[in-house]
Amino acid sequence: MQKRRYIKISKSAGLIPGSLVHIGEKKAEKQKITIFDYNVEKYEEREINNIEECFKFKEKPTVTWINIDGLHDVKTIEKLGNNFGIHPLIQEDIVNTRQRPKTEDFDDYLFLVLKVLKINEKNSEIESEQVSIILGVNFVISFQEYEGDVFNNIRERIRNNKGRIRRMKADYLAYSLVDSIVDNYFGILEDFGEKIEDIEDNLINSPRPDTLEDIYKLKRTILKLRKSIWPLRELIVTLTREESQLITDATNIFFRDVYDHTIQVIDTIESYRDMVSGMLEIYLSSISNKMNEVMKVLTIFAAIFIPLTFIAGIYGMNFEFFPELKWKWAYPLWWILVIAIGVGMLFYFKKKKWI
Amino acid sequence: MQKRRYIKISKSAGLIPGSLVHIGEKKAEKQKITIFDYNVEKYEEREINNIEECFKFKEKPTVTWINIDGLHDVKTIEKLGNNFGIHPLIQEDIVNTRQRPKTEDFDDYLFLVLKVLKINEKNSEIESEQVSIILGVNFVISFQEYEGDVFNNIRERIRNNKGRIRRMKADYLAYSLVDSIVDNYFGILEDFGEKIEDIEDNLINSPRPDTLEDIYKLKRTILKLRKSIWPLRELIVTLTREESQLITDATNIFFRDVYDHTIQVIDTIESYRDMVSGMLEIYLSSISNKMNEVMKVLTIFAAIFIPLTFIAGIYGMNFEFFPELKWKWAYPLWWILVIAIGVGMLFYFKKKKWI
Amino acid sequence: MQKRRYIKISKSAGLIPGSLVHIGEKKAEKQKITIFDYNVEKYEEREINNIEECFKFKEKPTVTWINIDGLHDVKTIEKLGNNFGIHPLIQEDIVNTRQRPKTEDFDDYLFLVLKVLKINEKNSEIESEQVSIILGVNFVISFQEYEGDVFNNIRERIRNNKGRIRRMKADYLAYSLVDSIVDNYFGILEDFGEKIEDIEDNLINSPRPDTLEDIYKLKRTILKLRKSIWPLRELIVTLTREESQLITDATNIFFRDVYDHTIQVIDTIESYRDMVSGMLEIYLSSISNKMNEVMKVLTIFAAIFIPLTFIAGIYGMNFEFFPELKWKWAYPLWWILVIAIGVGMLFYFKKKKWI
Amino acid sequence: MQKRRYIKISKSAGLIPGSLVHIGEKKAEKQKITIFDYNVEKYEEREINNIEECFKFKEKPTVTWINIDGLHDVKTIEKLGNNFGIHPLIQEDIVNTRQRPKTEDFDDYLFLVLKVLKINEKNSEIESEQVSIILGVNFVISFQEYEGDVFNNIRERIRNNKGRIRRMKADYLAYSLVDSIVDNYFGILEDFGEKIEDIEDNLINSPRPDTLEDIYKLKRTILKLRKSIWPLRELIVTLTREESQLITDATNIFFRDVYDHTIQVIDTIESYRDMVSGMLEIYLSSISNKMNEVMKVLTIFAAIFIPLTFIAGIYGMNFEFFPELKWKWAYPLWWILVIAIGVGMLFYFKKKKWI
Amino acid sequence: MQKRRYIKISKSAGLIPGSLVHIGEKKAEKQKITIFDYNVEKYEEREINNIEECFKFKEKPTVTWINIDGLHDVKTIEKLGNNFGIHPLIQEDIVNTRQRPKTEDFDDYLFLVLKVLKINEKNSEIESEQVSIILGVNFVISFQEYEGDVFNNIRERIRNNKGRIRRMKADYLAYSLVDSIVDNYFGILEDFGEKIEDIEDNLINSPRPDTLEDIYKLKRTILKLRKSIWPLRELIVTLTREESQLITDATNIFFRDVYDHTIQVIDTIESYRDMVSGMLEIYLSSISNKMNEVMKVLTIFAAIFIPLTFIAGIYGMNFEFFPELKWKWAYPLWWILVIAIGVGMLFYFKKKKWI
Repeated sequence: MQKRRYIKISKSAGLIPGSLVHIGEKKAEKQKITIFDYNVEKYEEREINNIEECFKFKEKPTVTWINIDGLHDVKTIEKLGNNFGIHPLIQEDIVNTRQRPKTEDFDDYLFLVLKVLKINEKNSEIESEQVSIILGVNFVISFQEYEGDVFNNIRERIRNNKGRIRRMKADYLAYSLVDSIVDNYFGILEDFGEKIEDIEDNLINSPRPDTLEDIYKLKRTILKLRKSIWPLRELIVTLTREESQLITDATNIFFRDVYDHTIQVIDTIESYRDMVSGMLEIYLSSISNKMNEVMKVLTIFAAIFIPLTFIAGIYGMNFEFFPELKWKWAYPLWWILVIAIGVGMLFYFKKKKWI
Repeated sequence: MQKRRYIKISKSAGLIPGSLVHIGEKKAEKQKITIFDYNVEKYEEREINNIEECFKFKEKPTVTWINIDGLHDVKTIEKLGNNFGIHPLIQEDIVNTRQRPKTEDFDDYLFLVLKVLKINEKNSEIESEQVSIILGVNFVISFQEYEGDVFNNIRERIRNNKGRIRRMKADYLAYSLVDSIVDNYFGILEDFGEKIEDIEDNLINSPRPDTLEDIYKLKRTILKLRKSIWPLRELIVTLTREESQLITDATNIFFRDVYDHTIQVIDTIESYRDMVSGMLEIYLSSISNKMNEVMKVLTIFAAIFIPLTFIAGIYGMNFEFFPELKWKWAYPLWWILVIAIGVGMLFYFKKKKWI
Repeated sequence: MQKRRYIKISKSAGLIPGSLVHIGEKKAEKQKITIFDYNVEKYEEREINNIEECFKFKEKPTVTWINIDGLHDVKTIEKLGNNFGIHPLIQEDIVNTRQRPKTEDFDDYLFLVLKVLKINEKNSEIESEQVSIILGVNFVISFQEYEGDVFNNIRERIRNNKGRIRRMKADYLAYSLVDSIVDNYFGILEDFGEKIEDIEDNLINSPRPDTLEDIYKLKRTILKLRKSIWPLRELIVTLTREESQLITDATNIFFRDVYDHTIQVIDTIESYRDMVSGMLEIYLSSISNKMNEVMKVLTIFAAIFIPLTFIAGIYGMNFEFFPELKWKWAYPLWWILVIAIGVGMLFYFKKKKWI
Repeated sequence: MQKRRYIKISKSAGLIPGSLVHIGEKKAEKQKITIFDYNVEKYEEREINNIEECFKFKEKPTVTWINIDGLHDVKTIEKLGNNFGIHPLIQEDIVNTRQRPKTEDFDDYLFLVLKVLKINEKNSEIESEQVSIILGVNFVISFQEYEGDVFNNIRERIRNNKGRIRRMKADYLAYSLVDSIVDNYFGILEDFGEKIEDIEDNLINSPRPDTLEDIYKLKRTILKLRKSIWPLRELIVTLTREESQLITDATNIFFRDVYDHTIQVIDTIESYRDMVSGMLEIYLSSISNKMNEVMKVLTIFAAIFIPLTFIAGIYGMNFEFFPELKWKWAYPLWWILVIAIGVGMLFYFKKKKWI
Repeated sequence: MQKRRYIKISKSAGLIPGSLVHIGEKKAEKQKITIFDYNVEKYEEREINNIEECFKFKEKPTVTWINIDGLHDVKTIEKLGNNFGIHPLIQEDIVNTRQRPKTEDFDDYLFLVLKVLKINEKNSEIESEQVSIILGVNFVISFQEYEGDVFNNIRERIRNNKGRIRRMKADYLAYSLVDSIVDNYFGILEDFGEKIEDIEDNLINSPRPDTLEDIYKLKRTILKLRKSIWPLRELIVTLTREESQLITDATNIFFRDVYDHTIQVIDTIESYRDMVSGMLEIYLSSISNKMNEVMKVLTIFAAIFIPLTFIAGIYGMNFEFFPELKWKWAYPLWWILVIAIGVGMLFYFKKKKWI
């Protein structure tokens, strides 16, 4: 009844290494290829249908950004990859959306895999989309699973020549893409933090089976977030170690800034994790508390009325020789006895702090 | 009543080091030896009965792959090992199936031990089989506990000259074997993931003692998986450190790709582990929840009817001087009192949110 | 109903890197700029309104300390930063109060971010304020979110030429600021330690749902403390590694002293953490103990009086042929039976150590 | 009533460092000294009473193995140590049986401390005995707490010239001793594994207070095993790092083989640990399950019969004006009512899946 | 009502760095200064009142050991420190008893801080005292909080020229002090181990709320022990790294011996920690077991007598048309029914293994 949560991952098992097979859901209907070509003086933006149109940009001294939305048409990606000299294994990685974030340094280009997070509006769960980035001497190629809005502000900055982007080289463009993705995490985490708080709020006071399920879901989501974001740290450390020729010193300081943001993101996730991991114990304690309450109510009622019922039972017996039954004040005295016992019990429970 | 889960591991204790004793279950009836000998132009495939037949391939410049299914006939393995110059301790390791995955670098050959995972169709538990691989200058020898199908796709590729395998050297063949084994893990993990989900599904809603047993079994299986797969990481790191002469640069990049896959497998196992390790707490919370429910039902019944029984008991007493008994409206008034108390209690429990 | 505990962190997402936006609550009404300029012979202290007034101090050989309280007026900070040659990304970090403690070494200045802790007097929670420090050749610039008293003792020492501060260079002033912040932690931790003890005191003896909430709050606070203080260790290690030209050997030994203090602070936090992390289990055990008590009371009452009620019920039956009812000593014998059973039960429970 | 489990460890505190005091239980009655002296051609075996008799072997080119069972006669050990040039601190270590496994490299001899495990047949607990080994150029001295059988197979191999032992040097003898000890662990662990399984078998199905005690004992034993075996890993790594002149390359590969076995032993212990550490939670869950069962039985009985008793109580009242009592079909109707209520309740609990 | 457990630690906050303030309890009434001056031929021991008297020993070639008990008279310590050239920050560390164990290497002297453990005889809790040691070329200065007996055996050895102490240099004296302190830990740990066993003994069989409190106290004590002893490991590693000129090779081997002891101490503490950390779970399981017992008793009584009471209630009804009441054998039959039901229930519970 529940949608399977794990993507089939075994689809490519047994294939020849380096063979291109799109692994993952087909999220976009049509592949969309857009090109930005710019330097400080001018810029050109166009959408193309035929991948061959972008080959000419490879040798141009201007910065070229080729963005491809949709990975299911592997033919296009293969053509592009072969033209730009991308290793077949890297092409395989691009179309296989179960990569973990990583970077690989071939001398003439850098390959980055990252995850963009997104809140699914239907079930408000966090989903991740794979973005691959190839940084060459004067070009950047980015691959997305579907058309997203995470890079829109970069497009705006190129169009309007805001900030330093048009003055810098391709490495700064690659930095900007990474920075956008990391910045995007903050919003996601903020939303998620609010969800945690909502659950916290009724954790101690009104624990219900639903809460248990919610906590479990939080745990799963944090697992997912960690899996998407932890490897990023290593990725950016590798980039800032200044070993690649492709990243200039001027851009390196910006990558160090992204590194700081990544650490903040990871810190936040770890805080969330610590918080959530304590929740189950709190929940269990809360349930025990409630049960204790229930038990006390039961015990108070039972301990007061069971003895009284016994006393009533005594005088309901039918012995022939039963002197008390004939006493004139027996009934009122009986009431005094019963009330005395009842009040005594109440005092006893009061003293035990049960009521 | 239950089959012992631990293989006798002490069989070889006290033996002379380097003496060949097959340790493990005898899983194959007959040892089967197959030879593939190929280069880019031609290939030869044959099954042999006499191990001496393969000695002549040792010096041939073509790539030779000797595959042996069944480890119980240690004589054959000793002859082969001595002819190819394999150290006696390595021969001992090959026939002792309780190795953990490892690699050893002798200058003229590399020795690898890996585990192939398999789902036992009878009890749907995951079992592991040991595969040893020896990579020499122009030969690869692989040892399996029994005839499996994990290498079939490689055989197909050699036969049909698909991909680059016929164009590459023995190191690429060794890579292909390792890659097949790692690829095979994905399918196993996928199946296992579905099992976890099934148990999750009735964890919160219908926890039963069975569920407890299932969780425990999941835990054990994950322990087993980790034991088989974790050491693989180190193994492949050692291979990719490019120290051995036997692995060329061209193949090294493929081993890095296998490394990425291994990390993905390990990541998945760790996710599973985190999920399962939280399950017990969830289960315990769920049970507590159910018990709370039971307690509430008990308390509501007891707290309503015990006082009412007492009230009925009062008027069952046989005192002679008992004015209420003679009142004309006593009985109807009694009913009003009883219903009022009952309804009052219900309101009280309603307010406490117990019903 | 509850104030959101997480500051909106996504405010700057999507902005151009290096653009100055104040992120965090506006805690001060007005920005306040104070300048201390001193050497061993004389000192000058003044408050200025116009940031340009402090530019002239940049080249003076005396030590200049510019302190800015209030970060919301980013224009002032930008002017100051540009005049003193501070990198735009550092300017961005100064006004963004969600930094984690870190240090960055530009050749001609050092940038430090620290957290000052403060107990909010209203809800007695621990709050953290960001303090940024820039150490140049002969100047120190410090940025606080609002006017605090953590640096007052340093101001006194400069005014009255106490200790060695007026004899030393700017690096010693920077050390003094860091030392003040770390010293300040001890008081905060002491208060916090007392709070932990208070909760401990009624953890075992009188566990209540409130205690659960308190423990959860302690956990959160420790998470916050760790987040603010752990990175400090690395920060100071970096400073003491003697790599920066700006820190002389004479001052370095003082930084090593601060390092020791930081380790003590971290040790204390970790002790607190260990203590608090065990509290929940203790609480749960305590609740279980209490429930056990309640159960025993219930069981004793029920086990004694339910059988007795039955015995009374027997003789309340109306059978016509009921010999006991006519016996003369039936009633006294009945009492003897009932008391014997009651006392027997009490002995039984005594033997079980329930009473 | 219970034997103290911790050996007095403070006996030597306050003594002059290097003074020989036997610390530990006196396990052997009489010290027994045996000598093996061999090369590939001949061998000599003898038991001596006077330690001076073995001094002459020191300079002989043949391999000499002196084995001493029983550590309480410190005089003998001191004489031997002084004659062979063993540092006083090492002599102290030999007779002090609370060492942890370690190795120390003096240029002309290597000192090893290991633990032999043994199952005490009386209480079937695992006990550890300390074995010290000194490896010199052409001699090996081993010290055991009492006469054991762990080295018997080595004695046999020397006597019968089996394997390569007579052909190799003293370092191979030392290896053989270490290998025997490590091989011995496998049998111990196997027994222990069966014990774990036995407890597992009745963990879920029939949890009893005994099980709890068993689990606790397993935990303690694993602690003990880890303490004895973990340091071995480091010990052997140190030996294989090939730094000592005393270990030849030919023997080094055998030590690497022991290393693999040690890792397998440690892996097994860690698996056991993981299994046992989950047992307590399982046990707790199982107990909760049982309690839930008990509660349900109680609730079903109480919820069915308490209301019915009330209904019976109504018609036991003695009101004079009580119309139902006179009705002719009152009694049969009453039964119908009571059965209807009882059956209704049963259906209700059926629906709740309690029965 | 409970003595605060945390020493005020904020006393020095805000002071000028390097100012001497005694932080900690004043444990000794009067400061006591004793001097030992010795070489292999002669020794001199004296107690002085005026600190100046010891200045002349500074330049003597004999080994001088100045021991100061009581830290509250900071003047004396300042004078001594200035005369022997001790850095003001080190002087501050000596009188501030909240140091963690550490070592600092100034070229002409080594500074060590250690903790001596002591069992408070009143409440049998473990307390720690700070001991600082300064090792110069031919002098050792030790500072204790109060006069203790931990160094008495060293004094004896100097007086009686036992062992090698009079033949060695100041570094061996420093080693002897450290060794005494570490040896002292064994006795403390042994006592503590017995305490753990006592609590273990009644953990499973007779768990009471007191046990819970005891476990919590054990946890706190272990935290304290770890805090005092863990840093020692690093301290001694630093000393044995042979970097300081002040420690000769001959003494270095003795420090390695202390290192082994320290590791043993730490191992023991970690074992204790593992044991204690499992205790809470065992306790909780034990309590659950007990509760289960209580529940069973309740359920058995309730399930047997509530139905019987109902049956008695039936025949207590006053219907006029009530055929059974008139039957002659009704009452005996009723007893047969009741006993049959009771016995049936007992069998049922027997089958369920509740009784």
